Amino acid sequence: MSFNLATMLRESATANPDKPLCHLDDFTFTYRQVDEISGRVAASLLALGLERGDKVAVQLPNVPQFLFTYFGILKAGLVMVPLNPLLKAPEVAYHLDDSDARVLVTFELFTAEACKGVAQLETPVPTYVVPLPGSQERPEGTRHYDELYAAADTRDIVPLSPDDTAVLLYTSGTTGKPKGAELTHFQLFMNCTVAGELFEFRDDDIGVAVLPLFHVFGLSSVLNVVVRFAGTMVLVPRFDASAVLDAIEKHRCTIFSGVPTMYFALNAADVSGRDLSSLRVGVSGGAAIPGEVIRAFEEKFPGCVILEGYGLSESASTTTFNVSAEQRKVLSIGKPIWGVEVRIVDDIDRELPSGPEHVGEIVIRGHNIMKGYYKKPEATAEAFRGGWFHTGDLAYRDSDGYLFIVDRKKDLIIRGGFNVYPREIEEVLYAHPAVNEAAVIGRVDEKLGEEVMAIVSLKPGATATPEEIIEYAKERVAAYKYPREVRIVPELPKGPTGKILKKELR
Amino acid sequence: MSFNLATMLRESATANPDKPLCHLDDFTFTYRQVDEISGRVAASLLALGLERGDKVAVQLPNVPQFLFTYFGILKAGLVMVPLNPLLKAPEVAYHLDDSDARVLVTFELFTAEACKGVAQLETPVPTYVVPLPGSQERPEGTRHYDELYAAADTRDIVPLSPDDTAVLLYTSGTTGKPKGAELTHFQLFMNCTVAGELFEFRDDDIGVAVLPLFHVFGLSSVLNVVVRFAGTMVLVPRFDASAVLDAIEKHRCTIFSGVPTMYFALNAADVSGRDLSSLRVGVSGGAAIPGEVIRAFEEKFPGCVILEGYGLSESASTTTFNVSAEQRKVLSIGKPIWGVEVRIVDDIDRELPSGPEHVGEIVIRGHNIMKGYYKKPEATAEAFRGGWFHTGDLAYRDSDGYLFIVDRKKDLIIRGGFNVYPREIEEVLYAHPAVNEAAVIGRVDEKLGEEVMAIVSLKPGATATPEEIIEYAKERVAAYKYPREVRIVPELPKGPTGKILKKELR
Repeated sequence: MSFNLATMLRESATANPDKPLCHLDDFTFTYRQVDEISGRVAASLLALGLERGDKVAVQLPNVPQFLFTYFGILKAGLVMVPLNPLLKAPEVAYHLDDSDARVLVTFELFTAEACKGVAQLETPVPTYVVPLPGSQERPEGTRHYDELYAAADTRDIVPLSPDDTAVLLYTSGTTGKPKGAELTHFQLFMNCTVAGELFEFRDDDIGVAVLPLFHVFGLSSVLNVVVRFAGTMVLVPRFDASAVLDAIEKHRCTIFSGVPTMYFALNAADVSGRDLSSLRVGVSGGAAIPGEVIRAFEEKFPGCVILEGYGLSESASTTTFNVSAEQRKVLSIGKPIWGVEVRIVDDIDRELPSGPEHVGEIVIRGHNIMKGYYKKPEATAEAFRGGWFHTGDLAYRDSDGYLFIVDRKKDLIIRGGFNVYPREIEEVLYAHPAVNEAAVIGRVDEKLGEEVMAIVSLKPGATATPEEIIEYAKERVAAYKYPREVRIVPELPKGPTGKILKKELR
Repeated sequence: MSFNLATMLRESATANPDKPLCHLDDFTFTYRQVDEISGRVAASLLALGLERGDKVAVQLPNVPQFLFTYFGILKAGLVMVPLNPLLKAPEVAYHLDDSDARVLVTFELFTAEACKGVAQLETPVPTYVVPLPGSQERPEGTRHYDELYAAADTRDIVPLSPDDTAVLLYTSGTTGKPKGAELTHFQLFMNCTVAGELFEFRDDDIGVAVLPLFHVFGLSSVLNVVVRFAGTMVLVPRFDASAVLDAIEKHRCTIFSGVPTMYFALNAADVSGRDLSSLRVGVSGGAAIPGEVIRAFEEKFPGCVILEGYGLSESASTTTFNVSAEQRKVLSIGKPIWGVEVRIVDDIDRELPSGPEHVGEIVIRGHNIMKGYYKKPEATAEAFRGGWFHTGDLAYRDSDGYLFIVDRKKDLIIRGGFNVYPREIEEVLYAHPAVNEAAVIGRVDEKLGEEVMAIVSLKPGATATPEEIIEYAKERVAAYKYPREVRIVPELPKGPTGKILKKELR
């Protein structure tokens, strides 16, 4: 009994060799091409001496090379470690080191931080760079991505166990440093299969791939679903309302998947003179989408229905879903998908009854839950106590079984669909020589949903301006994470145990 | 990441609690009832002290208790060992001993041999007996099946790994004592999912369950498919053409799954005055079905199409399939199903090109292949040499990729150095107007090594002499192939699915 997630690509390529798998601007790659190129990437990676289970870090935006590399890694029986392109050098080093990555594949635009990160490693790893179209520039010591697929050799899909890890997806979880969630071939296969069936994804569907593919939502619910059901995707490397509208119009896209901020932006865009009638489903996740936004969007895109779901990195994306316009409940994340159990539990893991007065933590069990956190047995055991995965999200269930998230997570900030974990930023701020105490919270932002804000107190006798502190953080964390506003106060409010009370700060 | 095949039952029961899962005569059990009763069976089995991975042998015909026990075992995280009801006492003892079965569930009609078999064990196991309706008889020392589900307690589905063994299915394979093929939760789930999609099984489909459920064809392609897609099944404990026709007519069945001998019998049956128009698909497997049989059946059942597939115990049933009336090729077993690779190889495992002149052994790789033979590492290694499962079946692939079985490797007759494939000769004999059933085997011959011999039965009322049949064959096949001896017998020995047993003929 063997399995490999890349089987999806092979089967779709066998059935539809000349069908476009992805478009990017004027480039198109067919299923046969992606199958062939990824087979060569697989061979090249194995020729480097990598062996089954070895990790390959991939720091790419939504470009065809993401697909070549992803399926090449899977075919070779290696493990994909998707990295956010915006990571700063120390973050790159941390992720490469923690994941035991043997190779890094990055993009010309990100080489400055990436190469600095690699240089900080005890044993720097071979770094392949995908150039911008037409570019010849590449930092010394790096290799050209073409080397990975110009190899004459190809490699057949390596048969694996369904339990083998396919993707190591970094997530901060509730506390501490980012942890690598081990997502298996089985788990990812089940998730895209069940999720695709929920919005009836068929082989004539064309999806907009603007959600980053390095994120679980884009990877599982867009890329994997498209390949599983032999559809087509239009890559949009950076969100911009008009770029998305162009893609829909040009390629007659049928499915758009995005976070609420993207729906806000599309609602605000001028669509006059455009034919956007091909769109039939908008999949929303990452944060709650207000009813008015849904109504406005569906008015603007007649024939399109927004379906909202809920998931996490640890659950290979989809956990709950609103199945159809008839069955959905606005502001609800829907019901558990096929084969997945969700419970709402209190602090000592007792299941709570339904009703909005019974708010508890969402815990999950089923095929969609990760194997564990890579090399973090204690964090894994803690997350899986009692056999259920603890999400840290607070919700209740109504009498019809629909789930409603009450507080996304006690302290989590969701900025434009991206998770910002306050403790990570706080740790950076605490390293500033003048900072005594720091708390990072989200403040409401019209565009992004939430914006990152820090409240700090200074050490006696020390001085620093808010601008200096912002600059300090900006240099050390990804652009989407650093606080845009810093307030300096004499002291932070604290509870009886000395814990800073974020509630009061808000 | 957890999984349990019984999730299929739970999901279908949640979505359709009051829908009939199975009918048997005037009894009907709904999804909710089977879900509830099997939960109690699970609790009772665990209360006996059984632990995850322990084996439970089940020797039942197609009765509702088969479903209760099967899903009870799965829910409890135990392993189902289906046994043929017709086993003799020493065979019962062998299977119980070899499988390390901790419990036996059997049927009133089989208790004589079953109890003798249990008594031969070093440590006899608790034996539960399903009585005939209304019966109170039960051998001393056995327990009433009701004890297994009259328990007040119930048990939730135990989360397992997808790689865990769900069923230990005994198969004679090519040589030696029966071996237990370890079929996993993942493998069985994938197989019924992919197979059901191939004949577009939907929740309004009603299948005839006359293939024995203790056999992989009935278990995977009938029971599992029905439960996976929330359909209904009509249990027919023993094959009889009129019982099958009654079931189709009474319950408006849409799918019939059977082996060729069943199709022969249905073709011969009187259907006048019956409304059988509900039937839309006939699934055939287990042996090649001749073109004339397909034509006659489809004429008799207008609107119904016969689709032929191929599989083994080790492949959780389906491996190849003819997808539709438009795409099928008569006498072909079709093409590999989704996610399964099939190669034709020579004696030293080199892949052969296509074409009828390139006959070789079928080897398989994919999600449908067993984990291995229970406690038989050498037989497992031998079957899996080079990473591919060796079926022992001889076939070729045509230029369109369709596979044609030529024969079993072990049935191959080598006459004076020439290969004679019995199936080819049998097809010729079947075309003789008087022949009902035919089997061609090799008998020892001093000069030639082997000589070709045929054993046939005649159609009711028909007459023919061995000489006439030899002459008929001689005119139609090459001189080295036709049978030199023909024996006419009233009936050929058959196995549980109706497959002719050549072993016994030899």
